[in-house]
Amino acid sequence: MSLPDNKSYEKKTSLSKDWYERACRVFPGGINHNIRFFQPYPFFVQKAGGKYIYDVDGNAYVDYWMGHWALILGHSPKEVQIHLVRQLHEGTIFGTANTTSVLLAELIQRSVPPAELIRFCSTGSEATMYAARLARAFTKKRKIVKIIGGWHGFNSNLMKSVNYPFEMDEGTGFIDTDSNLVESIPFNDLSQSLAIINGIKDDLACIIAEPILGTGAVPGDKDFLCGLREYAKSNNVLFISDEIVTGFRLSFGTMSDLYDLDPDLITLGKIVGGGLPIGVVCGREEIMRLSDPVVNKQKKDRCYIGGGTFSCNPLSMKAGLLTMTFLKNNKEKIYSTINGLGEASRIKLKRIFEDSGVVVEVTGIGSLFQVHFLNSNVKKISNATDVAIADQQKLNDYNLHLISDYGVFFLPTKMGAISFAHKLEDIESLLSATEDIINREIFKEA
Amino acid sequence: MSLPDNKSYEKKTSLSKDWYERACRVFPGGINHNIRFFQPYPFFVQKAGGKYIYDVDGNAYVDYWMGHWALILGHSPKEVQIHLVRQLHEGTIFGTANTTSVLLAELIQRSVPPAELIRFCSTGSEATMYAARLARAFTKKRKIVKIIGGWHGFNSNLMKSVNYPFEMDEGTGFIDTDSNLVESIPFNDLSQSLAIINGIKDDLACIIAEPILGTGAVPGDKDFLCGLREYAKSNNVLFISDEIVTGFRLSFGTMSDLYDLDPDLITLGKIVGGGLPIGVVCGREEIMRLSDPVVNKQKKDRCYIGGGTFSCNPLSMKAGLLTMTFLKNNKEKIYSTINGLGEASRIKLKRIFEDSGVVVEVTGIGSLFQVHFLNSNVKKISNATDVAIADQQKLNDYNLHLISDYGVFFLPTKMGAISFAHKLEDIESLLSATEDIINREIFKEA
Repeated sequence: MSLPDNKSYEKKTSLSKDWYERACRVFPGGINHNIRFFQPYPFFVQKAGGKYIYDVDGNAYVDYWMGHWALILGHSPKEVQIHLVRQLHEGTIFGTANTTSVLLAELIQRSVPPAELIRFCSTGSEATMYAARLARAFTKKRKIVKIIGGWHGFNSNLMKSVNYPFEMDEGTGFIDTDSNLVESIPFNDLSQSLAIINGIKDDLACIIAEPILGTGAVPGDKDFLCGLREYAKSNNVLFISDEIVTGFRLSFGTMSDLYDLDPDLITLGKIVGGGLPIGVVCGREEIMRLSDPVVNKQKKDRCYIGGGTFSCNPLSMKAGLLTMTFLKNNKEKIYSTINGLGEASRIKLKRIFEDSGVVVEVTGIGSLFQVHFLNSNVKKISNATDVAIADQQKLNDYNLHLISDYGVFFLPTKMGAISFAHKLEDIESLLSATEDIINREIFKEA
Repeated sequence: MSLPDNKSYEKKTSLSKDWYERACRVFPGGINHNIRFFQPYPFFVQKAGGKYIYDVDGNAYVDYWMGHWALILGHSPKEVQIHLVRQLHEGTIFGTANTTSVLLAELIQRSVPPAELIRFCSTGSEATMYAARLARAFTKKRKIVKIIGGWHGFNSNLMKSVNYPFEMDEGTGFIDTDSNLVESIPFNDLSQSLAIINGIKDDLACIIAEPILGTGAVPGDKDFLCGLREYAKSNNVLFISDEIVTGFRLSFGTMSDLYDLDPDLITLGKIVGGGLPIGVVCGREEIMRLSDPVVNKQKKDRCYIGGGTFSCNPLSMKAGLLTMTFLKNNKEKIYSTINGLGEASRIKLKRIFEDSGVVVEVTGIGSLFQVHFLNSNVKKISNATDVAIADQQKLNDYNLHLISDYGVFFLPTKMGAISFAHKLEDIESLLSATEDIINREIFKEA
């Protein structure tokens, strides 16, 4: 594999380079989310529309990062944006109740079993933190089981086994108790997982899992997820399905519904906010009711969850409602289109690499997909460790070549998402760019 | 004091009542932030503009809640909103770097000593969580000192001594360690505070304080705040000034700068986001640098903070930049106007009550103010306990009468904030409504 072709990237992004240097004087590392940095520096976006993002140097990129996979209709879809203009003039934050939030919540309630009650907050990190808190309050137990490599945001309660090497602490500044109360299990390995869980079940409040591991786009085996769920049900442990990525991504509903997981609590975000900040925790009434400040007047009876200043703000609510209504009204067409493009991407990318003797696995489901370069360490991608020990450098270089030479943007080494703004021709361009990169013998040593 | 005049409220808000019943079928307690509920039910906002919010029944209210005090220019100021329309069409979330964030950060850096480095996140609850994490990472100590009644959001690390009775746990679902590592001190009592702090200084990472206690609008005495700061400096403890409410509220800068507090870390939010979701943690370079993912490649060296999907999103960044630029360019006029209206409110409200024999204290500073009904338990408001044991029911009823009969909205029992959209005539209306409420002998028993 050739080194990343930084010269061609730097040549086309010279204004971005200046902005990055300026950004480094105000932001640690020049960015505001750790994963947004990539070598030699991230380009700076000027604007976005449909499937494209445009950088400050005037380059257009077909975007498969799509705002951390939040933008299922593409950037600023006109069906949504036109109506948001009015909301902008009629208020972005009321600080009290509004009707749009009720309509959005009713739509979620009807499509997400068992979202019997719902609380809106402003980020996914908040939603999972509140779900874990509710589980501890409901069960009166303390421990949390999560998946190795599972990602549930930056809150202090769930920052464990997130980055490779997974057995090491997630950096400094945490207190030991937080991580000691979190136990991690290997994805898609039910027997090993149950053995670990069994050892701590007496103090176990909940199992939290993404149905698709966002790290590497690895779908959970149905047997694995249902096995965890059954165990939880039999042992008075809550099962939390973190659907911040998967909610309304594969169908107009959740992946736990497709798999009959019947979770106790669900967290949502991204798509349901229509490109504006949102987090959602929802689930069975008897659990959610613990947070009700009207019923539980005494501190000892209540589980305090946010909220927050921006919770339920009318702009996020309107963006979510417009997006969700459009998805609902066009669900057959939208999901068959994007899932079909996803399937085509996975099959054809694999074929192109294999035809050239480059051994890859293309994981994903529906409109989510990711290429993994296999090597002597890993022959199959089943969990986050497989993802980490596959050839990450090669993946990074492949993504950088796509950015530099073909105007195609995957955040390097991260999962891609297809939106309803993408067309078959975009997939064809991605395939032909990939073929070209291979033919330029960049993958010679593979 | 009369009972709240619920009949007149219910008569004018009958559609809100219907919406509230509907909301209760999707949201625990019908709301998405605990403090947004008030008896008999909160009205539902249809739209907002300038100083007004309008409910679904068509009632207009002069708004002193102002989106949790975030809206210093009033609702949807045209100087900001017109330019946001373009951003709406050019993308609400890029998921990578953008130039607007750099411009906003540079403006904050120049006006907020010592904001040598800055990280944007999406909520205040996140910002204070990351500040506490950075303090623990930098000092390698675990304990946190906060003010009794101090409010730093819903994150698990700082939910202690928030609601009265302060010595009781903040509800269920927390692990003991989190609260055991937080020690609470009484506001504006330096000697007692230092005695408490001294007992735990060997394991003390930071002292976090709001310069004005948001609960009750109680300004910190300069000696108290500077005393805490000096103690921290002498004992290798970090001082975090939580300026999510006060940042750019009293002047174009922070209250810690006005008081020469020289904090190590500062948290911002609300005003700097121009009415869209934002959180900011900033401070001394050597501390903030711990979060730099480019410099600290190893997990063991890095303090992982968010970020989050919506961090640095271009719509919040643009709203913040437009608002902050307008504030900066008009700072003399804006701050002298709103601070002057605040001063007039405090002096004249107190006089009106006192002329009628109702003993009150009106706390606050600049454009922030709150009435407290004193009683045999409390003669002076210096801290959160004083606020809690003053006649909260009377305050609630006074606020409800203002809502029901005079179209004036304070979130019942909460601090009010004056925006640049408010005029002297609004203060005069508030004063005459207050006089009227007193004359109707509602406060007879006082």
